[in-house]
Amino acid sequence: MKDLPDDSFHVFDTTLRDGAQREGINLTVADKLTIARHLDDFGVGFIEGGWPGANPRDTEFFARARAEIDFKHAQLVAFGATRKAGVRAEDDAQVRALLESGAPVITLVAKSHDRHVELALRTTLEENLAMVRDTVAHLRSQGRRVFLDCEHFFDGYRANAPYAKQVVSAAHEAGAEVVILCDTNGGMLPGQIDAVVRTVLADTGARLGIHAQDDTGCAVANTLAAVDAGATHVQCTANGYGERVGNANLFPVVAALELKYGRRVLPEGALEEMTRISHAIAEVVNLTPSTHQPYVGVSAFAHKAGLHASAIKIDPDLYQHTDPERVGNTMRMLVSDMAGRASIELKGKELGIDLGDDRALVGRIVERVKERELAGYTYEAADASFELLLRQEVEGRPRRFFRVESWRAIVEDRPDGTHANEATVKLWAKGERIVATAEGNGPVNALDRALRVGLERIYPQLATMELVDYKVRILEGKHGTESTTRVLVSTADGQGEWSTVGVGENVIAASWQALDDAYAYGLLRAGVDPRE
Amino acid sequence: MKDLPDDSFHVFDTTLRDGAQREGINLTVADKLTIARHLDDFGVGFIEGGWPGANPRDTEFFARARAEIDFKHAQLVAFGATRKAGVRAEDDAQVRALLESGAPVITLVAKSHDRHVELALRTTLEENLAMVRDTVAHLRSQGRRVFLDCEHFFDGYRANAPYAKQVVSAAHEAGAEVVILCDTNGGMLPGQIDAVVRTVLADTGARLGIHAQDDTGCAVANTLAAVDAGATHVQCTANGYGERVGNANLFPVVAALELKYGRRVLPEGALEEMTRISHAIAEVVNLTPSTHQPYVGVSAFAHKAGLHASAIKIDPDLYQHTDPERVGNTMRMLVSDMAGRASIELKGKELGIDLGDDRALVGRIVERVKERELAGYTYEAADASFELLLRQEVEGRPRRFFRVESWRAIVEDRPDGTHANEATVKLWAKGERIVATAEGNGPVNALDRALRVGLERIYPQLATMELVDYKVRILEGKHGTESTTRVLVSTADGQGEWSTVGVGENVIAASWQALDDAYAYGLLRAGVDPRE
Repeated sequence: MKDLPDDSFHVFDTTLRDGAQREGINLTVADKLTIARHLDDFGVGFIEGGWPGANPRDTEFFARARAEIDFKHAQLVAFGATRKAGVRAEDDAQVRALLESGAPVITLVAKSHDRHVELALRTTLEENLAMVRDTVAHLRSQGRRVFLDCEHFFDGYRANAPYAKQVVSAAHEAGAEVVILCDTNGGMLPGQIDAVVRTVLADTGARLGIHAQDDTGCAVANTLAAVDAGATHVQCTANGYGERVGNANLFPVVAALELKYGRRVLPEGALEEMTRISHAIAEVVNLTPSTHQPYVGVSAFAHKAGLHASAIKIDPDLYQHTDPERVGNTMRMLVSDMAGRASIELKGKELGIDLGDDRALVGRIVERVKERELAGYTYEAADASFELLLRQEVEGRPRRFFRVESWRAIVEDRPDGTHANEATVKLWAKGERIVATAEGNGPVNALDRALRVGLERIYPQLATMELVDYKVRILEGKHGTESTTRVLVSTADGQGEWSTVGVGENVIAASWQALDDAYAYGLLRAGVDPRE
Repeated sequence: MKDLPDDSFHVFDTTLRDGAQREGINLTVADKLTIARHLDDFGVGFIEGGWPGANPRDTEFFARARAEIDFKHAQLVAFGATRKAGVRAEDDAQVRALLESGAPVITLVAKSHDRHVELALRTTLEENLAMVRDTVAHLRSQGRRVFLDCEHFFDGYRANAPYAKQVVSAAHEAGAEVVILCDTNGGMLPGQIDAVVRTVLADTGARLGIHAQDDTGCAVANTLAAVDAGATHVQCTANGYGERVGNANLFPVVAALELKYGRRVLPEGALEEMTRISHAIAEVVNLTPSTHQPYVGVSAFAHKAGLHASAIKIDPDLYQHTDPERVGNTMRMLVSDMAGRASIELKGKELGIDLGDDRALVGRIVERVKERELAGYTYEAADASFELLLRQEVEGRPRRFFRVESWRAIVEDRPDGTHANEATVKLWAKGERIVATAEGNGPVNALDRALRVGLERIYPQLATMELVDYKVRILEGKHGTESTTRVLVSTADGQGEWSTVGVGENVIAASWQALDDAYAYGLLRAGVDPRE
């Protein structure tokens, strides 16, 4: 745990718990682990991982996160409820599961709206307070840091302010480090948030946090309003994922705090990773990154030509509210330029390929990337394909370990309900013509196996490589008629993992391209010389 | 002009001018006319149509809008700049074009940031003030209502507050009805907007408006902050379209004003049309409506968590910040493995399937959903597959319009780089055995066509149905060895759209299942009786 901004302000991420409530998101344990790593890289202070005990997936996540992730910045947080009515906290199975998760921090959710206590929880207002006190005290006695989410706080405050405040005080007095006021239904506006947070802070003395939902389109502003009023803990989700409209978006919240308030809430240099992290998380949840997201969208610093363009030439600051590089984004002039010269040069440096001062070469690569991205390729999620492209331009010809003559895949559904998947590839390697056929659990798998069967004798290094992830997306055609398929493949060789991209008029053809790149890159990595 | 809220508050729409700056939007004159009709139906007070004289499209729009649209609520607004430096307003061609547009209202844009006057406009601060005064006075003398946009007002105010205020006063004194403070770069936060609007209002006495861009994710809140501070004119765009991140979104702004502030800013009943109008405008500009847009997104009132669902059964107001019907939207229950009995019952009700008090039946459905979701299915994104499952459980047997004996798909990559995709299906329908073969642009497309070729004679209703979206996801297997493929298909029939899911050991098999469900559901929708 180093380079952590001090504990006086908490950036608390709940993508894995509340963000997963978004319609269309369905995370596997592996997805959750990947996202946790990205969030930790980004430097949030707390990562709420789920509700251990509520479902087997979340229980498994906590076990694996503890074993597999060496957190650099973040503390792992387990989410759960206060004890049931009429049960001792230490006897409550759900509370026990929170402890058993091993998470050093626990966020408890409690009702603070009198009507919810009576209608949804079906207990008395007094028992609800006892449930808060007992559960907080029990978890504290077990050595855990405890935060308490007051669900529906703002609606509850409107209905019965004294009771809502009693819940805050009960948690605070029992040892909860932060009490989070939640706008669960998301109906609040900044002025209301400001007034309530100020009053509750003055009346209870508790350290307060804010959890805002975006139903009025004001979640970011509501979060900042709470900070203005004295809250020192913000709960957000990456890209604003969350139920209904979503949660307060982590990225514009931390950007406002760092760039507009001048308050350091992330480790040094983290903000410059924001655009990359935002897009990487979108890829994991398999949602197209919003092009118009503040700070990190590809359009966020894009200017249409004309009035603005000429002024930007004089001074970019005239037409930008912040320098896009501070959030890892780039200014774009439309129509043109996705990957600028500077980023290509930087990327080359990163890959150890010296592009020197060859302006013509860099210009050619920029053109090539633009042209390919227009056709549907995406290199930000396919580093290995990008490196192959870069090397091809630098070396003047592709590095090819084999040449494909043709291939064929057949999928057959039999009357008994089983499937046969068979593929044949015809290729050339080191002057030899190879024809190989294989079966697989699907057509892409069959192609993959046929390729390996054909090549493994010549390139034994292929035996160490394994396809570990595979994603398909249908892209809308530029002219709205024909659609294009994009496939992203991740391959691993025990030492590391790389991603490649293929684009084509159908899923098999696009997959084939991605596989072709995957093995070409794998052999390059393995130090094989294609000319031998 | 009837049923208009009084002139004391202006809802001013600039979708057709500033909204059209969004990357990816390219409006024809016909598009602009259609959007103007929708906005007028919705009941905004002002529709800014473009910059007549700046391009032929905008000039034509004004001519045709005057001739073709009988505005019920809105006044048409022409946008343009103050006169050039050193020219009389009456001699300025651009100013003349504004008058010739015939628009009853003209919005002039003027610089209010000293640095922009000097660097971009290349004139003196004094001449800029004269340009404002002369142009406003000239247009007023020609009988037009005049509003004045102070471009970069907030940045300008920070740099040189006295000068920024002089521009406001110059416009106000020359007869501009409203002076609009523009956050052109979109970098402001609500607290800053509030403070500046209050001061400028007190110091100049001008009627003020607000124009906010969304670069900090706070455009809606910034607009409301200006209203709180005394602005009585809000400039917005439908769905927040606009340059870079976008403009203040018209819909959450008017919804907040009407539902949260209790201020009537639209004609009676207009708000209930909001969801429809939002989607209709998205169709015209050819952008997929944002599913997560506040108030109007299809997910805006969708509930997923089991915890919430059981409370919603007791009282929907516990988990909704406003009644979705007030904005023309509807509540939806999402079915997922987080859901319990309550959400299944609500979903049944939504689909018009009475599950009555049959606890055993509901329990069986919950189990079935959990078991299927564990296997990789996801019903929250596949309403139609869920309804088929529900009906199967209720009716005790599946509704099948056809029975598949077997199918086969072949993809072949030829040496010349082209692909052949061919599929054959063998099936039974109404006692008849059918064998059909078709080609397609991919294996799934070929299967889809073969299925249609085989069935269209028996079910002519299939001709109206079309596959409109297709998504593939590879899920990690339970034991980390075998992976599972999930396919989501959206199908449309001109009347509506439905989604189905398929899961299998390969992409083709999973696609086949989703297609099978898609057509079964389509035929059910079309009222076909499977037993005939």
